[in-house]
Amino acid sequence: MSAMLPDWLTHRARGLPRVTAIAAGRRRGLSYAALYEYAVRQAHGLAAVGVGPGERVAAIAGTSSDFVIAMHATTLVDAIFVPLNVRLTAHELAEQLRNAEPAVVLCDLHCEALAVEAAALAGLSKPFRMPLETEEEKAQIVEAHDSESCHSIVYTSGTAGHAKGVVLTYGNFWASASASALNLGLDPSDRWLACLPLNHVGGLSIPIRSAIYGTTVELHSRFEPDAVNRAVRSGDVTLLSVVPTMLRRMLNADDLSFGSSLRAVLVGGGPVAPGLLERATERGLPVVQTYGLTEACSQVTTLAPSEAMSHLGSAGRALLSAEVRVDASVGEAGEILIRGPAVTTGYFRNPEATKAAFSDGWLQTGDIGFFDKDAFLTVLDRRDDVIISGGENVYPAEVEAALLAYPGIEAAAVVGVSDDEWGQRVVAAVVSHLPVELDRVEPLLRSRLAGYKIPVGIERFDALPTTSSGKVQRRFVRQQMAKRLAKLPSKQ
Amino acid sequence: MSAMLPDWLTHRARGLPRVTAIAAGRRRGLSYAALYEYAVRQAHGLAAVGVGPGERVAAIAGTSSDFVIAMHATTLVDAIFVPLNVRLTAHELAEQLRNAEPAVVLCDLHCEALAVEAAALAGLSKPFRMPLETEEEKAQIVEAHDSESCHSIVYTSGTAGHAKGVVLTYGNFWASASASALNLGLDPSDRWLACLPLNHVGGLSIPIRSAIYGTTVELHSRFEPDAVNRAVRSGDVTLLSVVPTMLRRMLNADDLSFGSSLRAVLVGGGPVAPGLLERATERGLPVVQTYGLTEACSQVTTLAPSEAMSHLGSAGRALLSAEVRVDASVGEAGEILIRGPAVTTGYFRNPEATKAAFSDGWLQTGDIGFFDKDAFLTVLDRRDDVIISGGENVYPAEVEAALLAYPGIEAAAVVGVSDDEWGQRVVAAVVSHLPVELDRVEPLLRSRLAGYKIPVGIERFDALPTTSSGKVQRRFVRQQMAKRLAKLPSKQ
Repeated sequence: MSAMLPDWLTHRARGLPRVTAIAAGRRRGLSYAALYEYAVRQAHGLAAVGVGPGERVAAIAGTSSDFVIAMHATTLVDAIFVPLNVRLTAHELAEQLRNAEPAVVLCDLHCEALAVEAAALAGLSKPFRMPLETEEEKAQIVEAHDSESCHSIVYTSGTAGHAKGVVLTYGNFWASASASALNLGLDPSDRWLACLPLNHVGGLSIPIRSAIYGTTVELHSRFEPDAVNRAVRSGDVTLLSVVPTMLRRMLNADDLSFGSSLRAVLVGGGPVAPGLLERATERGLPVVQTYGLTEACSQVTTLAPSEAMSHLGSAGRALLSAEVRVDASVGEAGEILIRGPAVTTGYFRNPEATKAAFSDGWLQTGDIGFFDKDAFLTVLDRRDDVIISGGENVYPAEVEAALLAYPGIEAAAVVGVSDDEWGQRVVAAVVSHLPVELDRVEPLLRSRLAGYKIPVGIERFDALPTTSSGKVQRRFVRQQMAKRLAKLPSKQ
Repeated sequence: MSAMLPDWLTHRARGLPRVTAIAAGRRRGLSYAALYEYAVRQAHGLAAVGVGPGERVAAIAGTSSDFVIAMHATTLVDAIFVPLNVRLTAHELAEQLRNAEPAVVLCDLHCEALAVEAAALAGLSKPFRMPLETEEEKAQIVEAHDSESCHSIVYTSGTAGHAKGVVLTYGNFWASASASALNLGLDPSDRWLACLPLNHVGGLSIPIRSAIYGTTVELHSRFEPDAVNRAVRSGDVTLLSVVPTMLRRMLNADDLSFGSSLRAVLVGGGPVAPGLLERATERGLPVVQTYGLTEACSQVTTLAPSEAMSHLGSAGRALLSAEVRVDASVGEAGEILIRGPAVTTGYFRNPEATKAAFSDGWLQTGDIGFFDKDAFLTVLDRRDDVIISGGENVYPAEVEAALLAYPGIEAAAVVGVSDDEWGQRVVAAVVSHLPVELDRVEPLLRSRLAGYKIPVGIERFDALPTTSSGKVQRRFVRQQMAKRLAKLPSKQ
């Protein structure tokens, strides 16, 4: 039986009207009362352009207070929020828009051209610039939500290169936020710095969690190591979520200590290079590694701050929002399986992918890890082939398909090679017996793929190493590419 | 869709094995690892006597570590815990046992005679003395529970005088505990003093909540004001739940200040007399009034500690685990309606009562209250006629039925009159035109009713004041009884 959950923003606007909900830069913060008022106005704006309950509201926009307001406004009309990745190309966005079929697309000034192109490609109406407000009372403002109804759809690249929309319910966010608080503790004066993109579940869940807690989110419109370091040292920020690349850049930005008010720095979104956590700890950052995924509404396991020092390298124990199993004995590696109240009900309008992802009620993450005897999880490899570069997931199949579209390329294998700054970089091995000019491949790819997916090195091979069944052995490709590209260009 | 929730005790035994789970008196506390080990042994003991998943395990026993272990053991075999009120008579207990049909009845030394009699009356096998342990591995120990499956059945007296078993699911307890933490905050060093009986939801939920949090419960086997005051002043206890009578007795026990480590004293379970909260506040107790009911798995509204001073007398705002509505405009009194993830799915094997309790998905509490413009709830009257004496609910219908069983008593009206110490005392107005000796009525009642339900005064009336429809006007009975019994005996 589902349950009705009170609307979190409404609850906090009534209970903690003067508490700062959103702090952004040097501007005055928005209180919960103000955030609610703006969200109601945008809710009326959404209703005025025809958004009804259960319909989708897509956002192609950078991080801003307006973005968070739009998210809350969408929930106030019981519609579904679909935050899209502004680093994608119009073609990639259009694919996601065709799946989501939003009633409206919202954008901001900087993303307007991209949003207009993507919407046109998907056959949708022209996007609206945020804030889409009206003073007229057009909307039926809801005060509660069914725990099983969809709050947001967050797209992840599928292994086959097709984006899948992960359905995240109100119950998923509630379970995730509760479990996170039960692990990290909860202080009414908490202030969580959000510098992860809000189209990622790791970023999006921060303002949602803060509304559930009635605490403050400090929004950074983009990750600037100096700005984050300054904020951390200001003494206000108590919690911070970063991907390993961000942590490295924070450490490299200066030589000062971080001695601060931070209770925990959650480091997730990919494997952490050895030494990075130790460096951060030595500089005074209370880092805790976390393992999460979109399908589980962010954190699945997190090291409790009290265990962080004794278990560096582990992603901690399961939170109370999900059970975690490894398909192997203690100490042996196997696929990580999860189930629980924070786990998605499936992919939007994609029953095949949903069916394939679950086995016996357990989500098969495709990630590989092992448990030690104290039930601490260590994650060895993210889903089979996925490349994680600067916190963004790149699925080789998608990049390979783009390469194979180039006349003369007969075979392609895309892999990630280790990189100190980005964790991994995307590189490609191609087979071509025609005189293909590899320099001319990149511009073609740029029109089809987001920048972070473009290989920084493309090398010609006579043949790709394959298994007896004909499957490319990416491990060998990776080794050979690493040798050939001993020095990669440093831009991404 | 239901979700699987990890077993809380198992989770904490793995994650926080050395943290104290139960502190009881001067004895050494039980760590989560030890609590789990004992619970597993009792789980095997339960399985050895035939308890399987979904079956009921009734407990007729006072507060002790064994009681809490038995509760956890029951969940480890996925059975349902049924804590019964040791203040009831064997006849009253037998009625509840006939409804619950437990596979076993557990008891302790002091309650053994009562439990044996009650079990015999209900046609059940002889109770087992706790701990019911075995070293043999008989049980299939579970590690997760369906959020919708029943954790406990807690009996409340129904308005018609028949006890109803409130089904409380794992999801109810999880939602209630999460919402309480989001309101009160959560500190890993929290220690919640439990001096409420564990057969009441207010008591039972304390060890459950503590296991969810991974924090400590300090068990007091009975409420002794001096012991509670000492514990509060020891500097260890951070949270305390009491009924108004207990708070008054704490204040009366000595004249010292309570300046302590307490974060909040939750005062619930009935109306709080004017002046009591102020007195407590002056003495240094951070009291917050709370409104809860068994059907909502304890707290529904609670004043946040930060609001307690400015809203003395209000029961605070709704927690995030339930929506609360009052069937009237702001500022006007009406029936309190609730729904949400902490609200029961219904009464055990009592579809009629379940149907009658819900309207349109909302639980009709029968309690009367009003909201102010800031959404603070003030509770005016608990369910129509219920009398709350020292935190125990007494339903007049049940006592009236017992009175009417006495030959010669033609009509009876049982009401509560205000009492400084107990909040309310039970008194009865009877009509009898035969020469009934009222002094001889009490012994008869004692064999049928728990002591706290026995009227402390029985007065003869020529006729009871009734409405035009013939319904007794309890308000007038109350006024007249209060006049006649200006001075009541002080024992209960």
